[in-house]
Amino acid sequence: MLSESGLIAVDWGTTNRRVFVLDPSGEVVDRITDGAGVLSIAANEFPAVVGALRERCGDRPMLLAGMIGSNRGWIEAPYLDCPATIDTLAAALVNVAGQDVRIVPGVCDRNQGRADVMRGEEVQLLGAIAGGLIAPGTPTCHPGTHAKWVRLDSAALASFRTVMTGEMFALLRKHSLLAGALNDVVTPGAAFEEGVKVALERRELLADLFSIRARILLGTLAPEDASSFGSGLLVGSDVAIGMDFVGGTDAVALIGEPGLTDLYASALALAGRQSRRIDGEAAFLAGVKALAARA
Amino acid sequence: MLSESGLIAVDWGTTNRRVFVLDPSGEVVDRITDGAGVLSIAANEFPAVVGALRERCGDRPMLLAGMIGSNRGWIEAPYLDCPATIDTLAAALVNVAGQDVRIVPGVCDRNQGRADVMRGEEVQLLGAIAGGLIAPGTPTCHPGTHAKWVRLDSAALASFRTVMTGEMFALLRKHSLLAGALNDVVTPGAAFEEGVKVALERRELLADLFSIRARILLGTLAPEDASSFGSGLLVGSDVAIGMDFVGGTDAVALIGEPGLTDLYASALALAGRQSRRIDGEAAFLAGVKALAARA
Repeated sequence: MLSESGLIAVDWGTTNRRVFVLDPSGEVVDRITDGAGVLSIAANEFPAVVGALRERCGDRPMLLAGMIGSNRGWIEAPYLDCPATIDTLAAALVNVAGQDVRIVPGVCDRNQGRADVMRGEEVQLLGAIAGGLIAPGTPTCHPGTHAKWVRLDSAALASFRTVMTGEMFALLRKHSLLAGALNDVVTPGAAFEEGVKVALERRELLADLFSIRARILLGTLAPEDASSFGSGLLVGSDVAIGMDFVGGTDAVALIGEPGLTDLYASALALAGRQSRRIDGEAAFLAGVKALAARA
Repeated sequence: MLSESGLIAVDWGTTNRRVFVLDPSGEVVDRITDGAGVLSIAANEFPAVVGALRERCGDRPMLLAGMIGSNRGWIEAPYLDCPATIDTLAAALVNVAGQDVRIVPGVCDRNQGRADVMRGEEVQLLGAIAGGLIAPGTPTCHPGTHAKWVRLDSAALASFRTVMTGEMFALLRKHSLLAGALNDVVTPGAAFEEGVKVALERRELLADLFSIRARILLGTLAPEDASSFGSGLLVGSDVAIGMDFVGGTDAVALIGEPGLTDLYASALALAGRQSRRIDGEAAFLAGVKALAARA
């Protein structure tokens, strides 16, 4: 699929879109990041939007991952069941008739009564393995709006658990009684670490989140530390759930945006767990190339 | 204070106001419930709003509880420290000069590095004891937007812990990815109980909340059961935190609105704990009379 004309690969999310134009050798020759997420596009406008993208990026095959393949996107690509590998994912790509466009399905986990879904992260996760960025079997975390903790069984995505950490921070910041108190930039210092420690010590998130307000009112938390402390509570709570899920003692691979993986690395260290950070963009590109080589 | 002209008692919250007019014998002769919460009133309008209320309800002494005494209300009544009794609360009432109006302070808990606050619930909690509705020492819960779990040391409010359960349900329902999925009425049946069981089994709230979406997508949760299941997750999580806090095995007194105390009674039963429901309005009126008798 990575033909003599190269490839247009898109990580197409709910609110954002990241486009990479690859030449035949797999080098990125152009990239676009914009706010044209699927929620900003009406159902009948997708063909025109995709056409415009091809016009802008050259007449190349397209590989679209993320929410573009959901029931709110363009064409629904049904979830692939765990265990999923780069080969089963490549085999499940959905071809858009006559357009040289392939849509990546999401992955679901229905093992042992579980119910979980991802869409988009599978390219990074399986790409990181295919590209040799992480070793098969590594316990892995993809932090974000909906953080994913992943058990890899050799090179297969065996099972995963989603924690709505990033979304919860945004909800609290915008719409809760804590709105106004959480507007400062989160930094991985003492206040963040204190939040992580509280979250690791007890699993009482909705009580400790309320305490942000009480601590400010009673003068035991500086207002400018509230964002970092609150982020620490959420990330610490996420790490506690994730470590229970992935088990073992191996270093955790953190795949995602550097600022975010830094915070998770700090929280994991407080939980006594080593970690290694992998750039999410590098993992996505590795996944794209591995899929293209198999499509 | 409950003079020959009776009393106007107001439970004045953020978004609502409940007014009770008592005759000299303590009987409720009139009641008003409206949306005139403190957030709907500009800071300089409180004297006029209070004056209008007196005009409507008769020239009687007034006792105002709740957010009216907060930094977003009319006149700030500083938090009274735990342990708090009906006597220390009565002694800390803030008189509004020349108006025959008293404002009830909130209560805060700074025991052993803790930081927690309440405003309004203290009248119901200490009122329930003063009025003989609960026995001194009973572990007590006041469910609501910010649920309060209370340790009573004899007749004193010794320590408490707040869980932002009701607010979280409203946030998820209105603003999250689950908006649209949680609009059905919550009922205390099988779906609610399943949510409670999941929450009691593991403390992984932000993962189990995300699973609502995954369960619906994968067909393992009927969309019409999502509200009750989600409420069960939140109430179950709240009960797990609360039982750890109050400790022991005594039946829990649930003070509040009947529909809500029913849900908590159901969740407590699944956790193997007995409970007894006390009507929040009766507790508030008992508190008002106990304060008036001491003021």
